[in-house]
Amino acid sequence: MNVHGTHFRTIWLKPDDPAVVQIIDQRQLPFAFVVEDIRTVDEMVVAIKDMHVRGAGLIGAAAGYGMYLATLQAPRTSPEAFRASVAAMGDQLKATRPTAVNLAWAVDRQLAAMDAAGSKIDAQIAAVKQTAQIIADEDAEFCRRIGEHGVTLIEEISRRKGGAPVNVLTHCNAGWLAFVDYGTATAPIYAAHDRGIPVHVWVDETRPRNQGARLTAWELGQHGVPHTVIVDNVGGHLMQHGLVDLVITGTDRTTYTGDVANKIGTYLKALAAHDNGVPFYVALPSSTFDWEMRDGLAEIPIEQRDATEVRIIDGLHRGAVTDVLLTPEASPAANYAFDVTPARLVSGLITERGICAASEAGVLGLYPEKRQN
Amino acid sequence: MNVHGTHFRTIWLKPDDPAVVQIIDQRQLPFAFVVEDIRTVDEMVVAIKDMHVRGAGLIGAAAGYGMYLATLQAPRTSPEAFRASVAAMGDQLKATRPTAVNLAWAVDRQLAAMDAAGSKIDAQIAAVKQTAQIIADEDAEFCRRIGEHGVTLIEEISRRKGGAPVNVLTHCNAGWLAFVDYGTATAPIYAAHDRGIPVHVWVDETRPRNQGARLTAWELGQHGVPHTVIVDNVGGHLMQHGLVDLVITGTDRTTYTGDVANKIGTYLKALAAHDNGVPFYVALPSSTFDWEMRDGLAEIPIEQRDATEVRIIDGLHRGAVTDVLLTPEASPAANYAFDVTPARLVSGLITERGICAASEAGVLGLYPEKRQN
Repeated sequence: MNVHGTHFRTIWLKPDDPAVVQIIDQRQLPFAFVVEDIRTVDEMVVAIKDMHVRGAGLIGAAAGYGMYLATLQAPRTSPEAFRASVAAMGDQLKATRPTAVNLAWAVDRQLAAMDAAGSKIDAQIAAVKQTAQIIADEDAEFCRRIGEHGVTLIEEISRRKGGAPVNVLTHCNAGWLAFVDYGTATAPIYAAHDRGIPVHVWVDETRPRNQGARLTAWELGQHGVPHTVIVDNVGGHLMQHGLVDLVITGTDRTTYTGDVANKIGTYLKALAAHDNGVPFYVALPSSTFDWEMRDGLAEIPIEQRDATEVRIIDGLHRGAVTDVLLTPEASPAANYAFDVTPARLVSGLITERGICAASEAGVLGLYPEKRQN
Repeated sequence: MNVHGTHFRTIWLKPDDPAVVQIIDQRQLPFAFVVEDIRTVDEMVVAIKDMHVRGAGLIGAAAGYGMYLATLQAPRTSPEAFRASVAAMGDQLKATRPTAVNLAWAVDRQLAAMDAAGSKIDAQIAAVKQTAQIIADEDAEFCRRIGEHGVTLIEEISRRKGGAPVNVLTHCNAGWLAFVDYGTATAPIYAAHDRGIPVHVWVDETRPRNQGARLTAWELGQHGVPHTVIVDNVGGHLMQHGLVDLVITGTDRTTYTGDVANKIGTYLKALAAHDNGVPFYVALPSSTFDWEMRDGLAEIPIEQRDATEVRIIDGLHRGAVTDVLLTPEASPAANYAFDVTPARLVSGLITERGICAASEAGVLGLYPEKRQN
């Protein structure tokens, strides 16, 4: 999407030096827009681990490009040594964020592409380079399609409101910054905005890491989408007073029965939407479905992160990013990163194949190849 | 309650100079415990307006003591001039926080006490001094009784859990810092702790002003009550997993039909409690009831505060309180300060007279003198 009026993806090959991968260092957003050159696998490992890049789709793409860097730096003494070295660097990439399913998927896909390219190292490198591009393109294309399907929901509300702005509430960042382009929850919003449908976004700041206030607000602002930042406590009040027409969030994992794991606090917004008759949709590419799990609340493990993220926050003070302590020194804090919204509270799922009910029948209706015999 | 092991109220006359009122400058909590001398009505006006003291009960008590300072500084040229001057300073005190009902109530009560004390100025001053003390004592006593009634809920859960710690979740600060002592939501918690019933408190940080993380965590910690600070997004997840036994909040205004206005986000916790079968209680002195309003959601006006409170936060950086910007410079923010929890989500109200259902029948059963004929 646009940054300062120019179209960007979140990751790409440097135009004048295709042996270099470029990313946006997202740690510095929204206070500075910094493009970072990644020249080695070690640098890509740091970029993923230290969250210069984050988000399910984007870290998959980063691993894909990381494997391309691996082929450029592996020893060419023999095809066997070359492959062993690339595979070892793939293991390094996989280990950066062990819970993220897209990492392993991208690394394994690259190894398969390399093996399929024959025994010539140059051909293998070309195949891996091409596959890195395909992984990124597919991610963007799936998100674009999510936008195409999801925008129909916004169009319908817009018609019903006689063209008055459609108020969409979103939680966390499931925007283009978390993918290669478009995003998931934001894709229908960008599609509506780009078609001239008036839309306004309530952006939950999303404590403790504030991905809403930092990333979603920034990317919407850069693309020119009207939005307002609110604290996470506000959404229920807005819904009680008719100020939210639609909720769209992303998800980190959704069971094939429709239970949605997403950033902590999503469940509270789903409850408020349900209580006030506001449609609550979840946008996701099919790679985010868990085809094994039936009961999200019982089965999806919830990561507990360092309490420091609750106790200390950073922001801009006199031009410098500065961290401040928010709690009494002696008070402990707990930091649950995700929660699970049961399917009964989800109006529907927006996927690259279309919109379906958040139920086994709905999901398997769109993905019949996943039916168990 | 206790601070560094010593019992404090939030406001008192200086022991060695009873012409001086002392308060805790709450703006500096939790990072510094500063007792401030208030010597004039002007200083008390600043202390209330700039929120050195805050909370319904405490600002009523502050106005009561402020009127005592007024009697000490009014001209004694004639009884008429004296009364006119005291009354004018009373108007100054009333104007500090115009929406707070306790201010006007305390000022008017002091004027009535003065008038009832006869024509001698010294007797009037003595009456106002005594009434300031009575106002503070009554506030503390009402909160103490709320604790006595509310602790029965905790005792019952403790018995059911075989003495395992009772997990109470609270939102914002309805602690002793908001009153003269004990607090409302915290009174049952302190009563349980002081009786040796194991209790642990989940403290919602309560964005945007973080009264939970700053004040509730601090006062619980000072009194030795085990607690954990969480972001406001977490409560629903905790309730889904059986980690909350009871929710108790305070309220800024409750209709006689049981609708509860309280700090923004309270409604979301009430929804989660309802969805998970967790009892949700609201603690309040009878002065917080609105005896005129029937429909809280439609009738209670919701204050919108400056968006700066959402965009900028302060905390401790290298020993100094420092503010940082959290959002993109260009992103607007909205700041709704309260929401209304409908009576259907409230398990009961804990008052100084006992616990009642959050309904007209329940409330008027405890306060029969408020029945309309």
